[in-house]
Amino acid sequence: MQIAIVLFDRFTALDAVGPYEILSRTPGAETVFVAERTGPVHDDTGSLALVAEKTLAEVPSPDVVIVPGGPGQSDQMDNDALLGWLRSADAATAWTTSVCTGSLLLAAAGLLTGRRAASHWLALETLEEFGAEPTGERVVLDGKYVTAAGVSSGIDMGLTLLGRIAGDDVARSVQLLTEYDPQPPYDSGSPEKAPAALVEEWRARSRHSTR
Amino acid sequence: MQIAIVLFDRFTALDAVGPYEILSRTPGAETVFVAERTGPVHDDTGSLALVAEKTLAEVPSPDVVIVPGGPGQSDQMDNDALLGWLRSADAATAWTTSVCTGSLLLAAAGLLTGRRAASHWLALETLEEFGAEPTGERVVLDGKYVTAAGVSSGIDMGLTLLGRIAGDDVARSVQLLTEYDPQPPYDSGSPEKAPAALVEEWRARSRHSTR
Repeated sequence: MQIAIVLFDRFTALDAVGPYEILSRTPGAETVFVAERTGPVHDDTGSLALVAEKTLAEVPSPDVVIVPGGPGQSDQMDNDALLGWLRSADAATAWTTSVCTGSLLLAAAGLLTGRRAASHWLALETLEEFGAEPTGERVVLDGKYVTAAGVSSGIDMGLTLLGRIAGDDVARSVQLLTEYDPQPPYDSGSPEKAPAALVEEWRARSRHSTR
Repeated sequence: MQIAIVLFDRFTALDAVGPYEILSRTPGAETVFVAERTGPVHDDTGSLALVAEKTLAEVPSPDVVIVPGGPGQSDQMDNDALLGWLRSADAATAWTTSVCTGSLLLAAAGLLTGRRAASHWLALETLEEFGAEPTGERVVLDGKYVTAAGVSSGIDMGLTLLGRIAGDDVARSVQLLTEYDPQPPYDSGSPEKAPAALVEEWRARSRHSTR
């Protein structure tokens, strides 16, 4: 089994590394970071660079595709090289997945049309404009398409998918070994739970940034 | 404010990227990945490489040090270059922190002697042998030393520390933007919660691997 994680300039690091940390433990699986070009790919702060070991062309038919999101996603929405690869790879995948605004890339490639899907809470309207049906859930399975909400939700997506691929006991082992027993010191992890003023502030900044 | 995240061969990726994703959002902070040599540093599966942008020598006095863990930690326990840097950097830090078995490196450098500390659940006995006082908590603050339990706990550590550094509202904003509202599909994230058979299996494998 081959798992391909797609990188592009200004991706969000945890979007990629959350599911990576879980799914790279799949027994018998090989995980590979791919991008248009090999070499370092910088994340959205510019301080972190993950190395793409192979080009998209070198990994034509992975069993699992994982597409992270991040501010750089908007520059990829009309990148035919990436969207074309997503379409051709998807034709042979067992699972096609995304985290955060990565679902907008799957949608732009035409892979989520009419499907239930997740994305970052600030991107749900755009996801709908691209033909998907946002549910507001943290992890959404629709056939072989597994999409997650913002950034950290990729860990929950990874465990959900690992359970489907390798069974509950393997998923429980990986949860135990990564000590994934979350104890956030605040309870502001969703627009329903965060203080309303913060939610409104970020909605306003988000509208401004996409103008 | 300068935040230095230490890399070494066979670190665990999420140990580093969890707190990175949170703390790199500290207003006015610069985050830098450091290692003995610059360039790609491979993680414990070998499939992921994060780029160290600067050498330890080039970052002599960061305000915050973050030390991840991972299987490669054991090879660093007598690495004077790394342990010496930890000691000299620590002399000027505002916060010295670790995730997972990174606390064993802080302890080996003599920085946790007599201090309350956390580590991966399979490493708590070793942490005690190196002079610290394991508490079994997920995130432990003892003065300026902040240590976290296994792998994913670095996210909780990051939010806890961000609140101390930048205030509760900044921490709540970052929690909201990373949509950190965990919903694990299993409840096996600690040795108290996981099935006893799995806990025993991994204890046995861990004893075997350190012989």
